[in-house]
Amino acid sequence: MTYCCGILVKGGLVMLADTRTNAGLDNISTFRKLHTFEKPGEYCMALATAGNLSVTQYVLNRIQEGVENPQSKELEKLTDMPTMFRAADLIGRTLRQVNAELHPSLEAAGVSGSASFLFGGQVKGRQLRLFMIYSAGNFIECSPDMPFLQIGEYKYGKPVLDRAVTFETELYDAVKLGLISMDSTMRSNLGVGMPLDLAITRRDTEVFEVKQRIDNVDPYFHDLRDRWSTALRAAHIAIPRPPYGPAES
Amino acid sequence: MTYCCGILVKGGLVMLADTRTNAGLDNISTFRKLHTFEKPGEYCMALATAGNLSVTQYVLNRIQEGVENPQSKELEKLTDMPTMFRAADLIGRTLRQVNAELHPSLEAAGVSGSASFLFGGQVKGRQLRLFMIYSAGNFIECSPDMPFLQIGEYKYGKPVLDRAVTFETELYDAVKLGLISMDSTMRSNLGVGMPLDLAITRRDTEVFEVKQRIDNVDPYFHDLRDRWSTALRAAHIAIPRPPYGPAES
Repeated sequence: MTYCCGILVKGGLVMLADTRTNAGLDNISTFRKLHTFEKPGEYCMALATAGNLSVTQYVLNRIQEGVENPQSKELEKLTDMPTMFRAADLIGRTLRQVNAELHPSLEAAGVSGSASFLFGGQVKGRQLRLFMIYSAGNFIECSPDMPFLQIGEYKYGKPVLDRAVTFETELYDAVKLGLISMDSTMRSNLGVGMPLDLAITRRDTEVFEVKQRIDNVDPYFHDLRDRWSTALRAAHIAIPRPPYGPAES
Repeated sequence: MTYCCGILVKGGLVMLADTRTNAGLDNISTFRKLHTFEKPGEYCMALATAGNLSVTQYVLNRIQEGVENPQSKELEKLTDMPTMFRAADLIGRTLRQVNAELHPSLEAAGVSGSASFLFGGQVKGRQLRLFMIYSAGNFIECSPDMPFLQIGEYKYGKPVLDRAVTFETELYDAVKLGLISMDSTMRSNLGVGMPLDLAITRRDTEVFEVKQRIDNVDPYFHDLRDRWSTALRAAHIAIPRPPYGPAES
């Protein structure tokens, strides 16, 4: 399993991914699922991956080595793309190409080849954008009405984002909420696990001001988990007793 | 969709269910999914249902009208059962019987006949128990190590229970946490909706001290939602800023 989320707020973009992969319960490994591409001041892009690891690695390699443009027949690389939309389209197109090559044999082997991506970032002179690319290679864009997107095992971590994240949320508050969402997911699903990868870019800087791996002994993350659990406990205790019961005896 | 949870703590048992059913997005109705059976001081039982509504209604009717015992050939009703285990077994057996009758035609129609149940309560002189009955009619019992069970759309509402519910949780705190878990689910999935049905029994009383329908204008539930959202906002704001960023400028 996998859990990745991208949060696009007024101040910037947060991308967060776990690193656990598993083929069955007895074959668990750590693989990076959050990949960054940047030329500071020119562009910064982050790609988070979920699904079949061989498919996502194929796509990741192809978009770096170059994919043939169907019109011009020239090789195009992710970081050559002049806009985020063109870059997302390149990823989607590459995914469809890989699907066409691999799916027949994956299907014959009874293996799911499904894969999806979160792709966010900014090219100089353009907007900061965040896309979710589905397994068919089509994609949607994140908007201020719903300023986050998720891939993988997304349900456990969605309520806290639904309740707390708006487009006006301060950038580092969004980071905290992403980490809480990730912690909720890891507690409820063993298929999502540490370490985590985090990338943060502030709007109109075209650079990642943070690219951080957060491991099992990270003191800040431990403190955040503890504070959140303590606050939740205090919060439910502070809610008055339901009036539905009998009178207190 | 459906969401039901049962929480079994030292003080007693909480059973909570939504009422939304849908056949597609354009055919949404309200059906009771939490059913109670009681003879105060003798037994109290609550059955929450998820899955194919025709299957769960078949089972519900059969266990009330009587199911033939394969050994004695006598008709047995849910409320005749001398123990909760025997009662859970009756439900499981009835579900297998209904499955055998309906599944071939459901499958031919491309409809899922899958159904599951939460079944909790107490028979006088016995323990208060909570079971989850799977669609194959087999079942597991809730234990103090993991004092809640869920059926239906369970993921959104699981993190808050995972973090906050223990066997020592006070009974009406468990009610609040069940309601918060339900609220989280309703916010994230439109297939789960108001009104809610709630039943509460205190250990060794064999009676439901609360059987409550909670509707859309219930002031307590509104207040609980507001307080919880406010507390979560305060909680994440109170967490220090992550140290991963650059120094504050």
